[in-house]
Amino acid sequence: MSNQGFWKSLENQPQGTQFPWAEVLEQLVFNEQGLITAVAQQHDTGEILMLAWMNRQAIEITLQEGQVCYWSRSRHKLWRKGESSGQVQRLKALKIDCDGDALLLQVDQQGPACHTGRRGCFFYEVRDQSVTIQTDPLISPDQLYAKS
Amino acid sequence: MSNQGFWKSLENQPQGTQFPWAEVLEQLVFNEQGLITAVAQQHDTGEILMLAWMNRQAIEITLQEGQVCYWSRSRHKLWRKGESSGQVQRLKALKIDCDGDALLLQVDQQGPACHTGRRGCFFYEVRDQSVTIQTDPLISPDQLYAKS
Repeated sequence: MSNQGFWKSLENQPQGTQFPWAEVLEQLVFNEQGLITAVAQQHDTGEILMLAWMNRQAIEITLQEGQVCYWSRSRHKLWRKGESSGQVQRLKALKIDCDGDALLLQVDQQGPACHTGRRGCFFYEVRDQSVTIQTDPLISPDQLYAKS
Repeated sequence: MSNQGFWKSLENQPQGTQFPWAEVLEQLVFNEQGLITAVAQQHDTGEILMLAWMNRQAIEITLQEGQVCYWSRSRHKLWRKGESSGQVQRLKALKIDCDGDALLLQVDQQGPACHTGRRGCFFYEVRDQSVTIQTDPLISPDQLYAKS
């Protein structure tokens, strides 16, 4: 069965239906680089913190350790969020979308999620032909990365 | 200046700083297929509705029409959300992330966002080696697409 067929076969089941994670993991849709998009959301406020990428190992580490691990596309390695800044993301819930090609991480983010020291990464707003910076850093990047 | 240099040059500016959208648009980071990831969030509840993709034209149409238009990777064409289901997404705010390679669409979603008839697409939750369906459809897909 193709990945697509797998996800189609699941979607008509009612709320509460369970499937073995080991089987579902095999059917996640990774891109050509072996990556899947992951959106991180603060679990209680609903704020979108960041968008990043995971490979299979990053997902397994995240579930095992209860703290989010991504794949860094720029550094080409596993990236335990907060490993250099101390600003970890504790995993509250991991969700998969209808066609198995995106993840939602509901987390408890310690301090800023963004490398600029801002709480979240989506701080540019487009409106009326202008882009406006919406937030200031909680802490300067110099201070944030001085710990490492 | 590289895209990366452009985004670096912006991020140290204070809250309220404005840039011309026409210039920023030129620096958005699209992938090899000319696409950028877009996360749709219900503007008032914070619920994550779906993750999809946009090309440059889809972004321009979305801003112009005030209703979200994506690029359908399966159908290889522009996809005005709700064109076959009637479940449109009215744009409330369009945000860009720190490195210019992801968009956050804060929207007012009419009815279900998901093709399964569920409110949102992230209805599978992974926990304790199981995956559980968290929600039921608001409306059956047959009914949803009967209108088209």
